[in-house]
Amino acid sequence: MKIPEEIDAAIRDAENVVLFTHIHPDGDALGSLLGFAEILEGMQKRVFCYLEDAVPYLYHFLPGRDRVNTSLTDLDAFIEENGKVTAISLDCGDCDRLGKNAERLQQIKPFLVIDHHRSHRNFGQFRYVDPSKSSTGEIVFELARQLEANISYEAAYNLYVAISTDTGSFCYDSTSPRTLRIAADLVELGVQPDEVSGQIYNNYTRERIRLLEMVLGTLRLHDSGRLAMIYVTQQMFAESNALPEDIEGFIDMPRSIKGVRVAAFVKENKNGVVSVSLRAKGTTDVAEIAKTFGGGGHRNAAGFRFSGKALEEVRTIVTDELIRVIE
Amino acid sequence: MKIPEEIDAAIRDAENVVLFTHIHPDGDALGSLLGFAEILEGMQKRVFCYLEDAVPYLYHFLPGRDRVNTSLTDLDAFIEENGKVTAISLDCGDCDRLGKNAERLQQIKPFLVIDHHRSHRNFGQFRYVDPSKSSTGEIVFELARQLEANISYEAAYNLYVAISTDTGSFCYDSTSPRTLRIAADLVELGVQPDEVSGQIYNNYTRERIRLLEMVLGTLRLHDSGRLAMIYVTQQMFAESNALPEDIEGFIDMPRSIKGVRVAAFVKENKNGVVSVSLRAKGTTDVAEIAKTFGGGGHRNAAGFRFSGKALEEVRTIVTDELIRVIE
Repeated sequence: MKIPEEIDAAIRDAENVVLFTHIHPDGDALGSLLGFAEILEGMQKRVFCYLEDAVPYLYHFLPGRDRVNTSLTDLDAFIEENGKVTAISLDCGDCDRLGKNAERLQQIKPFLVIDHHRSHRNFGQFRYVDPSKSSTGEIVFELARQLEANISYEAAYNLYVAISTDTGSFCYDSTSPRTLRIAADLVELGVQPDEVSGQIYNNYTRERIRLLEMVLGTLRLHDSGRLAMIYVTQQMFAESNALPEDIEGFIDMPRSIKGVRVAAFVKENKNGVVSVSLRAKGTTDVAEIAKTFGGGGHRNAAGFRFSGKALEEVRTIVTDELIRVIE
Repeated sequence: MKIPEEIDAAIRDAENVVLFTHIHPDGDALGSLLGFAEILEGMQKRVFCYLEDAVPYLYHFLPGRDRVNTSLTDLDAFIEENGKVTAISLDCGDCDRLGKNAERLQQIKPFLVIDHHRSHRNFGQFRYVDPSKSSTGEIVFELARQLEANISYEAAYNLYVAISTDTGSFCYDSTSPRTLRIAADLVELGVQPDEVSGQIYNNYTRERIRLLEMVLGTLRLHDSGRLAMIYVTQQMFAESNALPEDIEGFIDMPRSIKGVRVAAFVKENKNGVVSVSLRAKGTTDVAEIAKTFGGGGHRNAAGFRFSGKALEEVRTIVTDELIRVIE
């Protein structure tokens, strides 16, 4: 898909830009935001990066993360000071993903939308939504090339993080020859893949490994190995001294076993809630299963939660239902 | 580094080729072997792929793995039948890595050596050793291009596995713009990154997870967290019912911890040998450390082995030396 002319023209014309991305931002959201901010500033535009909440700790390594401003008052001042301001929403599949001030933010005109989500629901004034792209970072890179903008090392670094995290380090089916060639261009601009990977994948704690050891001890296979289940208790968190976010990636372990169609991870939370994450490798649609329990998600990754039930009970309920429906 | 003329000429001239790779073959060894076999057959050459042991189960998904023959009798028959035979050793940093029949195999003339290990110790008649390449798979790809050989889907698939496994899915510092562009070319030839990743990372056994749990229990940090060590014993293999190849990837766990400069994995083998793998994240050159123990490898990944020493003793020796040299 070619970059729409009105998007190209609107960006060239803009003197002042406000950039948005989605709440609970991931690597693509933040990398695109900070990368594009740097590129636009290189084009002598004034840029304001707005985010509802502060940058998550996991992404503090991103160069330029201090650009992010969470103050609506500051945003208003920027608009008032500069008169005409162009808004650009990056990586938001839905206007609700702009956060609790979504309506207010959308009052800025012109409002451009740049996204790659297949499930994108239109909003904004001018849109460039291309689901054939691996990431919003990939779109921003191509946009910069078309605008003949300079891509500094800082911009390249952020775009590399955007692309590599949103493709699971070039493992997902969204990884195209173009994706890999853009990554090559970014490495040529000075990005070091091992340095970036180190920041993303080698920043765990010893406590996380201790918790992983405990969680792996809970692994059970059911249904002739088609269902793999693990769980974590509050006691394990206490004993390992690990943090709630340390469980990220644990579900890849049961998922990695040959023959497993669905991996389930049952988590005892602090507030008496038991949450369940599901991952599918085969044709089973786990979003459908999650829906029957009041949850949701994608075909391959979904989740749901229970209140007022013990972990043991949830494990039994979920195991029985999964055995019933796994294809 | 350009491909040496004598290598180019020797391959063009060869009518019958025997391909070798190192014992305990990894993805680069097997992917290069099978990929090159397919490319050479496409050039109307007769090819024999010799391996001391059978292909590990983790790589049974490689297209053409049935080409591998572990019979010396068959190898002799191939040589006798065809008269002049050209030997090519792929990904072997050292002639000992050819296995217990190394001397006998090297009697074949001409004997070509293609490798990318920094610690490569010369052997063979004609050599193309280029440590600037991410993998032997990358060298084989460039060789095929220079020879104007056809790269079939089967060859592309094997070379993609070689390159992606030897770069940790494009994460290691050996990942150059060229590496990524070759990967892009291979995807263009039909390789699906998600299909390959699924085969590599989602084909493990339940026994492997059990062994991982045990090995994680051995994790110790030393030197204010700059050294992380794990180990595996024969008893753990027996208790978990896991296979020797199941330990692949385990060293990434201690390596993933923040602040760790060197990760070490001490392995008790069946034959009274204790082997040690090292991974470096910082500036420490583990190939140098491995060399002091008679081993070798790359700056970031190296190994060595002891005979006639107990696991406990090796752990102490290695811990002391690493604490002394870690930067």
